[in-house]
Amino acid sequence: MKKAGRVYISRKVFFSAAHRMFNPELSDEENLRLYGKCSNPGGHGHNYVVEVTVRGIPDERTGVVINLDDLKKLLDWEIIDRFDHKDLSSGVDVLEGSVISMETLVRVIWDLLDPKITDAELYEVRIWETDTNCAWYRGGE
Amino acid sequence: MKKAGRVYISRKVFFSAAHRMFNPELSDEENLRLYGKCSNPGGHGHNYVVEVTVRGIPDERTGVVINLDDLKKLLDWEIIDRFDHKDLSSGVDVLEGSVISMETLVRVIWDLLDPKITDAELYEVRIWETDTNCAWYRGGE
Amino acid sequence: MKKAGRVYISRKVFFSAAHRMFNPELSDEENLRLYGKCSNPGGHGHNYVVEVTVRGIPDERTGVVINLDDLKKLLDWEIIDRFDHKDLSSGVDVLEGSVISMETLVRVIWDLLDPKITDAELYEVRIWETDTNCAWYRGGE
Amino acid sequence: MKKAGRVYISRKVFFSAAHRMFNPELSDEENLRLYGKCSNPGGHGHNYVVEVTVRGIPDERTGVVINLDDLKKLLDWEIIDRFDHKDLSSGVDVLEGSVISMETLVRVIWDLLDPKITDAELYEVRIWETDTNCAWYRGGE
Amino acid sequence: MKKAGRVYISRKVFFSAAHRMFNPELSDEENLRLYGKCSNPGGHGHNYVVEVTVRGIPDERTGVVINLDDLKKLLDWEIIDRFDHKDLSSGVDVLEGSVISMETLVRVIWDLLDPKITDAELYEVRIWETDTNCAWYRGGE
Amino acid sequence: MKKAGRVYISRKVFFSAAHRMFNPELSDEENLRLYGKCSNPGGHGHNYVVEVTVRGIPDERTGVVINLDDLKKLLDWEIIDRFDHKDLSSGVDVLEGSVISMETLVRVIWDLLDPKITDAELYEVRIWETDTNCAWYRGGE
Repeated sequence: MKKAGRVYISRKVFFSAAHRMFNPELSDEENLRLYGKCSNPGGHGHNYVVEVTVRGIPDERTGVVINLDDLKKLLDWEIIDRFDHKDLSSGVDVLEGSVISMETLVRVIWDLLDPKITDAELYEVRIWETDTNCAWYRGGE
Repeated sequence: MKKAGRVYISRKVFFSAAHRMFNPELSDEENLRLYGKCSNPGGHGHNYVVEVTVRGIPDERTGVVINLDDLKKLLDWEIIDRFDHKDLSSGVDVLEGSVISMETLVRVIWDLLDPKITDAELYEVRIWETDTNCAWYRGGE
Repeated sequence: MKKAGRVYISRKVFFSAAHRMFNPELSDEENLRLYGKCSNPGGHGHNYVVEVTVRGIPDERTGVVINLDDLKKLLDWEIIDRFDHKDLSSGVDVLEGSVISMETLVRVIWDLLDPKITDAELYEVRIWETDTNCAWYRGGE
Repeated sequence: MKKAGRVYISRKVFFSAAHRMFNPELSDEENLRLYGKCSNPGGHGHNYVVEVTVRGIPDERTGVVINLDDLKKLLDWEIIDRFDHKDLSSGVDVLEGSVISMETLVRVIWDLLDPKITDAELYEVRIWETDTNCAWYRGGE
Repeated sequence: MKKAGRVYISRKVFFSAAHRMFNPELSDEENLRLYGKCSNPGGHGHNYVVEVTVRGIPDERTGVVINLDDLKKLLDWEIIDRFDHKDLSSGVDVLEGSVISMETLVRVIWDLLDPKITDAELYEVRIWETDTNCAWYRGGE
Repeated sequence: MKKAGRVYISRKVFFSAAHRMFNPELSDEENLRLYGKCSNPGGHGHNYVVEVTVRGIPDERTGVVINLDDLKKLLDWEIIDRFDHKDLSSGVDVLEGSVISMETLVRVIWDLLDPKITDAELYEVRIWETDTNCAWYRGGE
């Protein structure tokens, strides 16, 4: 192989959680107008998929950009243990005070992972709340 | 075509909802022992997939077993309008008093649909709460 | 392995085709009432998925029910070559005179395959016209 | 969350349509040479998937980049109502005079959506005609 | 719910493994004729998906047929720990002496699980070696 | 269409192969530490998915960036014929001397395809070894 440039590596994890789109500083009518059925009292839920992508030049000795087992452990710790089988709208400290949108989740997860990924560069955090709806964040570029 | 036997027709619908595995007649410890993280207070949620199958001999004039638009309207009315973006563990009348398991959901949906499918025979109600977990019911045979 | 009972083997194939739900013996209004947008003049199309299942007792020497390469060749010949990139509503001889419903397709495909599968027993022909709509046929039982 | 940079939001929609790869200014032989079976007379069809991505900085009050219900309505209006259950090669005004390739479709859809997405920036239009073939457009950059 | 009949419950697990279709009692030519490229020396591999289905009448108190966590632990123990990241054609004791076909795998997995599922009745073991090829076993009926 | 900018075109192909993560210059302990179960003797395997993306300005006469049939033939020749139903860790010449990581595969495939795609610009080679693990390469940018 003549080239030795950057390679991107992605890993997906899955969690199931309840959430509700709701801003307590707004009226119920305003919440309903903004979020529709997503603001229903009692909330609803999703099977969330999170895909985390890092990039870097593969190490010549190991042939890899990042140890995938280490990445898996980090994602289990920071994402699965924190969010799986929880109500994201209540009692999850890193989400307190935010509207629980996909936009919020990708930014929160980025901020959780970025300081802990040191062997490679965090490139993207992507989340699907359903097969049709998805958000991603690349550090705000 | 020489044969004129039964054909099976399936249609899938999708809804997102919160739920919690919990039996109020049991202690918290017993609920935790039985249902693990699925009994977490606050609940969690899923993107549910429901597949409804009917069977019958295709009508010679129309070439179909059942009008798929009519079936779609029935499923929208009985399943989507009732369960989508709701908390299944609270405030959904047909589910009151039951543990909100996949087992309960397929039987409740069967009982909702069976009296209303008259052009064909209801054969199966199947539900996925995740890509890996699924339940189905064929009227109790 | 103590048991030597029947095993079921399935193989999926894919084709893309145009079709239109239309019965020329009925009025345009009746076709529209029966089939809705599926009867639009000019037709529409789908990526069809066909899954064919056979069953039998695995041969002791080969360990298999049926030679999967042979089954693939049969499906390529009988299904792909006949239907792929065609207009199913016009010019496909085995479909002439029928409403091109999923019900028709599974029965026509059954009749094409059944006489040619001799090493094992044809058990089911299943077709998806979309991810949500599916039909299957088990010989008319 | 310390960062407030751009987030990308995607939504998928689905339609089924007939099409034929054909340039009337070329001979039948040239069409066959260029497009193979995709130029078969009578056409064929697909279940198309379209994914539209916008990007922007989430609104501080609402927590979102764009109202997903509004985006859904726009996609239903501009894409589904126009293309679903149609023959793309005949009678769809925005496609008249073009070869109905994936390349054409992503550019036409971009031109339809771009002037109407004002809360956020249109980033990408992607189309799948099958699970294996896909095209996307980012405004021509 | 008026009915109290049987419900079917399925769970999927995943493993990646190497295998080779080969019967050492046959000549290389005969192996090649029977199994084609699947008999290539050195073997190949798959991401296998196994779906295990049990059935039973849901317990009135718990609302479920079987404890899904217990079923998951059983599948992890009997299937994942045994087959994941292994060469199925060499060194896996329960497979010694068999052609490593899908037919063999579903029967071996059935025999491993059947004596250990006591709360419910084992109904089916299904395996996919690719998205297009699948086998299942129902105890030999 | 007023715009005439670049369009991206992707095509997916599939192959099944065995591999083992192993660097012969390292001790068994070091291999185990680096690659975990992926270094098991005997190897394991995957259903690999490769997605190749090219980009270019669609030809005005043909309406396409690249002839998809030609691209398919190239991918069949360079990827499928070379890797399908092989043991990637032994006897595949372009992989000799490399750790068979996803990082290696995307770079090797890029180097194989890049000189042969002349009608359009090779943009990306992406590989999935499972549904959850993926790597891609864009020429080393």
